[in-house]
Amino acid sequence: MPENSLIFPADEYRRRIRALQGEMARAGLNALLLTAPADVFYTTGFLTRFWESPARPWFVVVPAAGDPVAVIPAIGAELMGRCWIKDIRTWNAPDPVDDGVSLLADTLMELVPASGRIGIPMGLESHLRMPVADFLRLQDMIAPRQIADGTAAVYRVREIKSEAEIAKIRATCTIADAAFDRVPGFVRQGMPLSQVFREFQVALLKEGADWVSYVAGAAGQGGYGDVISPADERPLQAGDVLMLDTGAVREGYFCDFDRNFAIGRATDDVRRAHASLYAATETALASLRPGMLARDLHRILSEALEREGAVVGGGRLGHGLGLTLTEWPSVTPLDTTELREGMVLTFEPGVEIATGRILVHEENVVLRAKGPELLSRRAPADMPEIMG
Amino acid sequence: MPENSLIFPADEYRRRIRALQGEMARAGLNALLLTAPADVFYTTGFLTRFWESPARPWFVVVPAAGDPVAVIPAIGAELMGRCWIKDIRTWNAPDPVDDGVSLLADTLMELVPASGRIGIPMGLESHLRMPVADFLRLQDMIAPRQIADGTAAVYRVREIKSEAEIAKIRATCTIADAAFDRVPGFVRQGMPLSQVFREFQVALLKEGADWVSYVAGAAGQGGYGDVISPADERPLQAGDVLMLDTGAVREGYFCDFDRNFAIGRATDDVRRAHASLYAATETALASLRPGMLARDLHRILSEALEREGAVVGGGRLGHGLGLTLTEWPSVTPLDTTELREGMVLTFEPGVEIATGRILVHEENVVLRAKGPELLSRRAPADMPEIMG
Repeated sequence: MPENSLIFPADEYRRRIRALQGEMARAGLNALLLTAPADVFYTTGFLTRFWESPARPWFVVVPAAGDPVAVIPAIGAELMGRCWIKDIRTWNAPDPVDDGVSLLADTLMELVPASGRIGIPMGLESHLRMPVADFLRLQDMIAPRQIADGTAAVYRVREIKSEAEIAKIRATCTIADAAFDRVPGFVRQGMPLSQVFREFQVALLKEGADWVSYVAGAAGQGGYGDVISPADERPLQAGDVLMLDTGAVREGYFCDFDRNFAIGRATDDVRRAHASLYAATETALASLRPGMLARDLHRILSEALEREGAVVGGGRLGHGLGLTLTEWPSVTPLDTTELREGMVLTFEPGVEIATGRILVHEENVVLRAKGPELLSRRAPADMPEIMG
Repeated sequence: MPENSLIFPADEYRRRIRALQGEMARAGLNALLLTAPADVFYTTGFLTRFWESPARPWFVVVPAAGDPVAVIPAIGAELMGRCWIKDIRTWNAPDPVDDGVSLLADTLMELVPASGRIGIPMGLESHLRMPVADFLRLQDMIAPRQIADGTAAVYRVREIKSEAEIAKIRATCTIADAAFDRVPGFVRQGMPLSQVFREFQVALLKEGADWVSYVAGAAGQGGYGDVISPADERPLQAGDVLMLDTGAVREGYFCDFDRNFAIGRATDDVRRAHASLYAATETALASLRPGMLARDLHRILSEALEREGAVVGGGRLGHGLGLTLTEWPSVTPLDTTELREGMVLTFEPGVEIATGRILVHEENVVLRAKGPELLSRRAPADMPEIMG
């Protein structure tokens, strides 16, 4: 990272702010109040793992015109001062009496007329990263200004990635590709899954991940039970399918894809399941186009799996990706979000081989005018077998 | 982890629930609604890195009597089914129309009388991990039941660690001790800080961390500017002080402490600063007792630093620790939380050597009847010098 600690040139952030302000104008919002790590990073370039501490709230206010204002704990002033925005207001947090609330209220009252509306992300997949009691106090303090739903204003901008962002996500995918290549070199029968997870995280770091925010996976005879469990101490054995799924991070941008490995020879039903997942992904890669909806992608994938004789399983079949491990939309039958050029998505079809035995396959793509372009290197058509 | 994926025997969780129910009775709460990862893990044993995805809310309801009820996305049913609680209700998330809200409302209406009060953590250091719009809808759906402040009921229980929890935190501290021991072996002049961070994370994993949720640090001539920045590409040079701070995780429990290293010979002002931090920590180790308040610990540390001629700097001087990187209380002049036997704390004194140059020193302790007991291995009195 350069001395000023910005991941991108300041112009990238200015474009984002102008785009947000365009959406805000259309939605009748006089400001946006942002509290989530990804929204703060998106608007300011402020990148830190310090979010891991729940102790302090952090606020960015995007006004109707002009640059954002940061209202943050003093401990972050040095790092925010190396970002592009100039108006940084701090307090000594955590303060049990007034943890930034009055400073934030003053800022909002300065930037927003009394009749104004302040948008916050409050819809699906959003959280407000501040204490609820302080949020209720804030509402009283800034009245008659109203808090309104700013979800769409934020999502419609953030979901379209710039070429600079796409390059970052591709770089992280390339790191994970290389780490997955190392798996057959360190995995062997008898190794506990916990050790596989540790070695895989080491491989991601060695290949250039700044940190590894997510590793999940599973191993089981002829398939696995779920895709979100931490590792157990069970040793790998012949007949297992090993799945590793990762959200590594480089310069603040995630990848999110998995790979499957047969321990010993893959059984026929595992091969068939893998072939159906591979074929369904090929179908989606060939047929998805901008203007389709998230639920259309669900239909494409699930119909392709059914044509292959597979039973669809494993939850949603994909989602957005970028500044967090998962972003909206969700590839479900219910999500009507339009898929647009520049969206980065995962295709994540899953099948149920038998009760309690699933197989999930995942790729990362960016949607272009002519269709999806892979960001992860395409998984092999046949599941790799680890014979050692 | 055992097959049933619980970190502790079920009795540990039952004791926690009884303790919560005791606090709830005193506070006049008929249920607790929990949404934060640490609270879900604390009450159920449900441990996953899947929280990294903001897509889905997860709920645990602790009734006035009896076992908790989990209201969770179907994707978590398999893992929650291996935990100790039996009443698990699921929906297919994410659902853009009703993302678990009506299922949660039904559960609360079943468990809480119409005149009842449902506590949620809403105070300092808490977040509600569900969309605000859904929270507002939930309030309407469960009326006339009231949402009330359940912060103290949760904090007064969680802040006292059982011996089983203390053993977990000690185990994680021991992993970090061993990783810090490796630092002089891989750090050398000319190495970029980004590579130091990667190697340090590898060392933590090799020593047995399940994952590394937090690494921060800094390097600068005669001190550093802040303690929360990600790594930059600047090569280490003679005269730098390198600080590494980590929140590694083993079986769901964190450590949180740092270590400082001089690159080449430490200058006199760095030695003096380090000696003052060491002495202040010794004073706190010798004099802190249960019954003192968090602000008393701030006074003990800051007065000791001032006696050494140091300028106190760097934010709060310690905090709680355990299921998250930082927990309440905060070692500030304002925090009146009583420090009690069984609390796990960090001592984190910081000094300002010169404008923009700080030094921070951190240890992890458990407070016993007779005073603090170290969980981290005590840092050396003299800052280690890396001459290579």
